[in-house]
Order: sequence, then C-alpha cells, then structure tokens
Amino acid sequence: MPDMRIKVPGTPETQYEIVIGSDILPSAWAQIKAAHTQYNRFVVTDEHVIAAGHLDALLGGRPAPYFAIKPAGEVSKTIDTAVAIVEAMEKAYLGRDTVVIALGGGTVGDIAGFAAAIFKRGVPVVQIPTTTLAQADSAIGGKTGVDSSVSKNAFGAFWHPAAVYIDVAVVKTLDDRQYRSGLVESVKHGLIADAGYFEFIEGHLDEILARDPDTLEMLARYNCRIKGSVVEEDPFEKNKRRILNYGHTVGHAVEAASDYEMLHGEAVAVGIIAAGLIEIELSLSKPSQLDRIRAIFERLGVPVRVPASMVQEKLIDLMRHDKKAVDQWPRFVLLDRIGQVRCEDGQYAVQVSREVVVNVLKKLR
Amino acid sequence: MPDMRIKVPGTPETQYEIVIGSDILPSAWAQIKAAHTQYNRFVVTDEHVIAAGHLDALLGGRPAPYFAIKPAGEVSKTIDTAVAIVEAMEKAYLGRDTVVIALGGGTVGDIAGFAAAIFKRGVPVVQIPTTTLAQADSAIGGKTGVDSSVSKNAFGAFWHPAAVYIDVAVVKTLDDRQYRSGLVESVKHGLIADAGYFEFIEGHLDEILARDPDTLEMLARYNCRIKGSVVEEDPFEKNKRRILNYGHTVGHAVEAASDYEMLHGEAVAVGIIAAGLIEIELSLSKPSQLDRIRAIFERLGVPVRVPASMVQEKLIDLMRHDKKAVDQWPRFVLLDRIGQVRCEDGQYAVQVSREVVVNVLKKLR
Repeated sequence: MPDMRIKVPGTPETQYEIVIGSDILPSAWAQIKAAHTQYNRFVVTDEHVIAAGHLDALLGGRPAPYFAIKPAGEVSKTIDTAVAIVEAMEKAYLGRDTVVIALGGGTVGDIAGFAAAIFKRGVPVVQIPTTTLAQADSAIGGKTGVDSSVSKNAFGAFWHPAAVYIDVAVVKTLDDRQYRSGLVESVKHGLIADAGYFEFIEGHLDEILARDPDTLEMLARYNCRIKGSVVEEDPFEKNKRRILNYGHTVGHAVEAASDYEMLHGEAVAVGIIAAGLIEIELSLSKPSQLDRIRAIFERLGVPVRVPASMVQEKLIDLMRHDKKAVDQWPRFVLLDRIGQVRCEDGQYAVQVSREVVVNVLKKLR
Repeated sequence: MPDMRIKVPGTPETQYEIVIGSDILPSAWAQIKAAHTQYNRFVVTDEHVIAAGHLDALLGGRPAPYFAIKPAGEVSKTIDTAVAIVEAMEKAYLGRDTVVIALGGGTVGDIAGFAAAIFKRGVPVVQIPTTTLAQADSAIGGKTGVDSSVSKNAFGAFWHPAAVYIDVAVVKTLDDRQYRSGLVESVKHGLIADAGYFEFIEGHLDEILARDPDTLEMLARYNCRIKGSVVEEDPFEKNKRRILNYGHTVGHAVEAASDYEMLHGEAVAVGIIAAGLIEIELSLSKPSQLDRIRAIFERLGVPVRVPASMVQEKLIDLMRHDKKAVDQWPRFVLLDRIGQVRCEDGQYAVQVSREVVVNVLKKLR
C-alpha cells in the first residue's frame, strides 16, 4: 500500500575554483575572506605544517582560531580527531557561518573535510594542500573520511571543497621521501588518462626532482584537469571514477601489510608495477611499457618491489577485504596502453583470476 | 588568478515512499527487502522499543544484526553512540550494500540516520518511527544529528530516508505522557499550514486520546502531507522550512532549562503558547484564538505554562544562544491566523523585541 511520496528536490550543478601558483599562500587568506564575506574562518592543520611555517604564511600575523592535529600523519586520521575539531569549533563559538580551511597534506584534508561535512549539518571547506600527494590527488574530488577503531575510512562523506589553493612553493619544505612518493599519483594520472602528460614527466624528471616551480605548476594543471574531469563525470564513484584506483588494489594491501610504514605513494608505486605485471601476464601490454614506468619510479627513488619481509598470504587476505571486492575478490583497473584504461563491457574495474595475481606477487619480490 | 574550475554535477530530484497503516510492522521487513534486493539490513533501535515487542514484530523470527541504544532516550543522542553503531556495522562485516533501519522514536531516528549518513560515505536509511512525535515530525524531512559534549546537534547531516513506514498501532505501547506530548507537533502542523486539520484535531480529541487507529491514520496523512510539502519546498532550511520551528524558539529554551526533564512536545506546547502571547502582544491575533489552542493542550494534558522553578534570565540567555539567532537574539515564527504563518518581507522568521518577549515570559508563569 504505497501511501504518499515525498519529493527530494535535486541540486543544481555548481563549480569550485582551483587557484594554482607559486608563493600564493600569503594572498590566499584575503581571497578566501572576499569569497566568503559573511563567514568566519577556522583553520585545521598539523604540527609539521606549522613547524614548516605555512600557517604563519597563511595568516600573515592575523589572529585566527585553528586546530593543530597532533601527531601529524595517518595515525591521527580517526573519528576522535574529527570530533575534537568540531568541539574546538564550538568552543570558539563558531556556527554555520564558518568556512573550514584545511592546510596540510592528505590526512589534514581528509579529516578537516569530514569535520566540515558533519559540523552542524555541513559548512564549506577550502582545501590548501601542502604535499605533492595532496596537491596531485586528495585535495580535489570531494572524498573525505576518517578511520574507526575497526577499519580505514569507516566514516566519511562526499564533501566537495568550496575552493582549492595549490601553492607549489610550499612543497619545498617536504623531506625527500615525502616529496618523491607523492609524485607517484601524478605518474598515475598520466598512465590512466594522458600519454602526453606521462611523456612530460618522463622528460622533466630533473626539473621535477629540483622542485622547479614552473614545472610543478605544469604538473598541478595536468593533475587538476585529469582528476577534475574524471570526478566531474562520476562524482560518486559509480564506475569511471574507479580508474583513479589504478595501482591501488595491490597498493592498499601493501600499505596495510607494512602497518603504514610505507607511505601511500610508495605503496601505490608497487601497486602500479603489479598492475603492469598483470597486464603483461594477460598479454595486454609489452614489458617495454612497464620498463618505462619502472624507470621513472627508480629515478623518483620509490619502491618497485614488495619488501622481502611481507608475507604473500597476508597480501592476498588483505585484497579479499578490499572495499570494492565482489565475492571476496577485488576487481582491477588495467591499462590498454599508456593514457588509456581498459574497459570491459562498460566496466573499468575488471576481473583477474587469483592465479594471475599470485603469480604477479611472486614476480614482485 | 582563477586557474581552473571543477564542476560538481547536480543531483536529480528523487522521491521516497511513506507507507501508513495499522499493524504494518510485521510486513515491513519483506517490503524493505524487496525494495533493496542487493542490500543487507542492519537495525538500530533501543531497549524500550525492544521491551515493547516492536523489534520482534519487525523481524518475525528472522535473524538480523541490530544495535540496541542503551539507555533509551535523549541522553544517548551523542557522537559516541553514532560511532558505536558504525563500529558495530563493521564488526558485522557490513559494507556499502547495507540499508540501516531506524526503529524507534526521534532519538533513534536522529542517531541512526546520522550513522547511515557517515558510514562509508553514506548508506540508505529506512525510518520506522514508533512514537507520536517521530511519526508526526522527525522521521520525515531528512534532518539527522547527534550532540557533542559541548552542545546539542553539533554533528549532523541532511540525509533523506529511503522510505518511511508509519504503523499507527505501535504507539499503543507508549506511556500516556509520551503519547500525548508527541501530539503537540500534530497541533503545530495544523496551526502553521491547515486550519481544517486544526479543526479535525479539535473535533476528534476523544478518538485521538483513545488511540483510535483510523483517526491516527488520518493524523499521519495530514502530518506527512504538511511536513512533506514544506520540506519539498525548502529541503535545506533556507527560509520556508523555518515555519516548522513554530513554538520552538521558546520551546527549545524551556526544554534546555528543564535539563531535558520536560519532553520535547511538552516544551513545544509551552513555546506555542508563548508564540500566541507574542502575537497578542503585537496585536496580530485575538485572545480567543489562543484559547482554542490552550483548550486542546489542556485536553492533551501537556503544560501551557513555564514551570515556576524556571528562572526567566536563564530562558533569555538560552534564547540568545539559539542556533538561528542573529546578533544574539532569535527570530520568531508567528501566525497571521490559524493555518497561516506570518511572512514579513519574504521572511518567515521575524524580529520581535526583547521587551515583548520578556513581557510574554512573565505572563507564561
């Protein structure tokens, strides 16, 4: 007996601006203020970002309430931190007329974005990513989330930023390992969507490793264009957006098996090599293509093999628990060629037998 | 230097079904299963609802994972409870293919709806309200939220239900105080939107107090139609939806000043009388109109005065902290006449001087 129906009105298309430049952090505050004239500002950052001087650069001596995540890093990406942020906002007497400014790496952006999504049914968030990883990937696209005591990203929301400011000068303060590992997501973007971008990276590794601002601006533009267009097409990850997961199925397992000792980009590098080996195993691509990718990763100094200490059964078990697993076995994003993801029957995440994956994991040692 | 823009696609209009009937709880499970064939089900309820036999009626002997909120009631409407629900879902190995079923009063619906909104970036929730309050009001409209250690509803999300099942037979198990106080929101719906509905309530108080199923079905239909149409027009509470707040400005303050000893409907009854007194004070209505409203509340046995123990300054202070306050003073929803909310310059929440409110509070003793 269907009795009544309540309409939930649709929402109109909106858009947000990504500002890219070198040394734009000092002018960002005034721009955010101008764009949100009726709003208070609340900054979420972490102790590393503060130590690097980026909070000072953003505030320029202005007083502003902020929350410093301690300790910095993945270990703080918990629901407890998100709750602490919301309670800090309340204690600062902030209401719905508040814009949250996420100043930091992927962890800061994920936590602050989630806190903004759930604070009094949602307030805007401006993302100011300060790592190569966050600038290439996590600051764009609207995925936010934190971990529970049981699993990763158990809590989350789709919460698109109101604006993104990418200051390529701030990555100068990153240590080498973090700087380099974050570039893996840029390589991934070339692989899944733009052979020209891949070749640009291949041809500019010296400038990239020297942290040349002009080259990094080019990377930022490529990254935002590629990730932006994928997200625009499939904001809620029904299908196409899955291509961003290239290298992440094995990558997530490797990252978890390392107890998060490996950085996300490092684990994804291994995962991309794994995907390449699967493609070779299935005769989808030639070893020479994988050699080109491996050569870039070796120049970046990121791993291209599974650490010897990692037990293969553990990796297999972790993959069975993959969030996107079907019947306890994940699907894989694979390439037809550089710049082109394979699509089978309209699906971008395809079946690969367990046997093939086991073989590939052996070759990854 | 605006660099790039990312489009966030709009969402299409959707709709959800409200099923209204007597003794429909035993058939609801099969209907939910049929409507969400690929989904697992997870029930959130509380110990009172279980003791009243409603969980058994819903499950009909089928095994299903569930979470029982303990203790039942407002005191458990916290972020900790929402976190515990999400972690219980994870421990039951549930994923994004899960529909949350909220079986209970307003508190259960608010907590379970919020947990569904944040579990793995959001899963559907079906609301099965079991109190007169939740059936008239909170189960419809998509507002969800929980309290922080600092304030009420600090955490929240707009998360529309996938369906609502209103079984008017389940309210038979409510104690008299809870049953009667929940009816105040039905009276409010008549006052703000439909003089005919108000007269229907006036003319059927015997049947209503006898919990006659046919009369309660009529109430449910009126309530859903009125609240549904307001929510459809203004889902995110930009303006029109504020009319649902009639009686709530003073009501929320009274509820808080009682340390939540007063039930929500009881406090709103006092708040509706306060709004009526403001209308008289401003010569917007005649005392005879307020007498009709007061007569209904007296039959329902809900309070029409502020308790003598309640300090006026405390009420004023609480109103200054009203969520919708502007310059630390709330706006009020007022009536032009029964069935018609006053609209000034296109705004449904209007300015009332502090002096008028202070006078009215004195008369409310």
